[in-house]
Amino acid sequence: MTVTTPQGFRAAGVAAGLKSTGARDVALVVNDGPLDVAAAVLTTNRVFAAPVAWTRQAVSDGRATAVVLNSGGANACTGPEGFADTHRTAEHVADVLSTSAGDVLVCSTGLIGVRLPLEKLLAGVDAAAAALADPVATVDGGGDAALAIMTTDTVPKTVSVVREVSDATATDGAATWSVGGMAKGAGMLAPGLATMLCVLTTDAVVDAATADAALRAATRTTFDRVDSDGCMSTNDTVILLASGASGVEVTLDELTDAVTEASASLARQLVADAEGASHDVAVTVVNASSEDAAVAVARAVTRSNLFKAAIFGNDPNWGRIVSAVGTVPEDVAPFDALLLDVTVNDVQVCRAGGVGEPRELVDLAAEREVRVEIDLHAGSASATVWTNDLTHDYVHENSAYSS
Amino acid sequence: MTVTTPQGFRAAGVAAGLKSTGARDVALVVNDGPLDVAAAVLTTNRVFAAPVAWTRQAVSDGRATAVVLNSGGANACTGPEGFADTHRTAEHVADVLSTSAGDVLVCSTGLIGVRLPLEKLLAGVDAAAAALADPVATVDGGGDAALAIMTTDTVPKTVSVVREVSDATATDGAATWSVGGMAKGAGMLAPGLATMLCVLTTDAVVDAATADAALRAATRTTFDRVDSDGCMSTNDTVILLASGASGVEVTLDELTDAVTEASASLARQLVADAEGASHDVAVTVVNASSEDAAVAVARAVTRSNLFKAAIFGNDPNWGRIVSAVGTVPEDVAPFDALLLDVTVNDVQVCRAGGVGEPRELVDLAAEREVRVEIDLHAGSASATVWTNDLTHDYVHENSAYSS
Repeated sequence: MTVTTPQGFRAAGVAAGLKSTGARDVALVVNDGPLDVAAAVLTTNRVFAAPVAWTRQAVSDGRATAVVLNSGGANACTGPEGFADTHRTAEHVADVLSTSAGDVLVCSTGLIGVRLPLEKLLAGVDAAAAALADPVATVDGGGDAALAIMTTDTVPKTVSVVREVSDATATDGAATWSVGGMAKGAGMLAPGLATMLCVLTTDAVVDAATADAALRAATRTTFDRVDSDGCMSTNDTVILLASGASGVEVTLDELTDAVTEASASLARQLVADAEGASHDVAVTVVNASSEDAAVAVARAVTRSNLFKAAIFGNDPNWGRIVSAVGTVPEDVAPFDALLLDVTVNDVQVCRAGGVGEPRELVDLAAEREVRVEIDLHAGSASATVWTNDLTHDYVHENSAYSS
Repeated sequence: MTVTTPQGFRAAGVAAGLKSTGARDVALVVNDGPLDVAAAVLTTNRVFAAPVAWTRQAVSDGRATAVVLNSGGANACTGPEGFADTHRTAEHVADVLSTSAGDVLVCSTGLIGVRLPLEKLLAGVDAAAAALADPVATVDGGGDAALAIMTTDTVPKTVSVVREVSDATATDGAATWSVGGMAKGAGMLAPGLATMLCVLTTDAVVDAATADAALRAATRTTFDRVDSDGCMSTNDTVILLASGASGVEVTLDELTDAVTEASASLARQLVADAEGASHDVAVTVVNASSEDAAVAVARAVTRSNLFKAAIFGNDPNWGRIVSAVGTVPEDVAPFDALLLDVTVNDVQVCRAGGVGEPRELVDLAAEREVRVEIDLHAGSASATVWTNDLTHDYVHENSAYSS
């Protein structure tokens, strides 16, 4: 159920003292091949962390043999010294694993604006490498790695998607190939990407261009459609490593489908564990003029604090939905405000831009999941963006996080 | 200190039973002339309330003799019936005041998606008109009107700006002219405009084009720079009425200056009374390539829930500031992330994109007002956007408002 589900991967997660709690905080994921294909999608934030700058360069040749990840510090806004720390980390991993630094990707997560305790981190790399070499310790190495990247996450997020090979393409007796993955992210959770770290692995035989295309397609419709709190991070990284160890060649469509399924599962797990949330909210826009228009309208709703606070109060206050819809410019999403329908948990509370069924018919208290559907009557495209409610616990966690 | 400070205006505010609390909820502001100049700036939300549609049309000729305002219901998303309610209200005011319905502007505020109790509202208009005619009751009519437009506001917001006429332009012995005003707004408080109702009055002699130009210039740099919670309303309305009763002719610059001063005061009062807030935060961007760039960067910061929650926790978490700055596209605001300086309450916590003075030097607990300055080192333009912190009380008020 994790990055080690696909053949050809080892992982480890250890406690190196970066977290004051003593919990695991350094992880390694190693691709033993035969392929060393890699792709990454990185934050579009113009203020990006040193490991993002490093990984962007290191993955540009479509190859990587290892990923080192740490929690306990984002290594963002740390200047040239911070970049040197990342460089040093990659070189140390390369030394320990007998690879080259340019084939080591780096991810960090935690507080912005604080240097990492480098000696502790390097000692953690040594401990993780030792665990990789220990057959007993590596039994649940994938699970340990998923634990090591958690920050305010309350549970680790992992996934595996196993595909059986149809007779027509099974040439060498391999019956299955798979995609595995782990992710972290509970705050600063918004598109472009959702604020998170994620490592996906596959034992399929694919080239770098296919891996890159599949990963970008998958993130666009999964992680990019999570908008828990509207805040974009400096460290967002989603990595896909392909070992080819299954011997199964797959098409771009097959890989995209499996990576999307794994990413959708992880994205849903992120929403379910978002900081302080009491509801997971799916905002679906239907009959839009384009998919981009549907996403823009859904995103406007998922970013409304008033809407999110109402959901926390189990209040189907649809006025806050339509007032958010109305903020989207006409050139982005054409629609007629007098045609808008809004349904909350299957009750059409707004019909043709006016009052529909009584809002009292909506039950928000029964389930954690809330379904909002907005019908624009302007085309045939649709999209769903996930968000959370705005709660006392969100305010509490985020007013106390760095202190 | 209110809409009746300038000569030529009467006002009243009465309790008509629209609010369940029994507080004042219907207001009238009447311009007795000799001029009946009027201008309005209205919400840009594509989902706009019936009174906004009415007022946009009624003010298009640059003239109005009265404004009727109610709290206790926004009359938004109420369909053709809601527009008929607004029309009926304007006609009733016209009958009572012996004017024409097309010279009556209408403003409503309260819950979206609920019809107004029209008979109560019309009876309120009668009572307000009676109070206008009563010399005793009208002594504090402006204050009563300011009370009647409150929703979750805890205090009324009023202002007056009095200008002495310099010798060169004093031709008829009038020594002063003035601008008065009142406003409401505590939630759904964001630009385009800030979610609010505001009536400004002046006894200066101006034509409709001058009034319109002065009002648009004033709102652009005051109400449009308040972003308490990022949520744009369906009912935002700012109205300027000019009676000419002072006999003083003023230039566009003079009027703009006074209306801007009055609007800035009201905007600051709105921020100070925003729902549940414990801090008022001025985010100033300096050395931007343009004023629009400065506003875009400031707005990105004022819309970050993580930043706002940190301020509530008296935590100068500057990583949340720079990560919000980094979300602004380069074509909107060019800057080099490695040159960014950030100062919080005069302590430069981020210098050249990296770590500056220790964050422990920043004291956020001492004062309600917080000053953030972001230096882009990309030009010479600057702008300030005001916001509030994200608090438990904000969540509480907005999760319970409509229930």
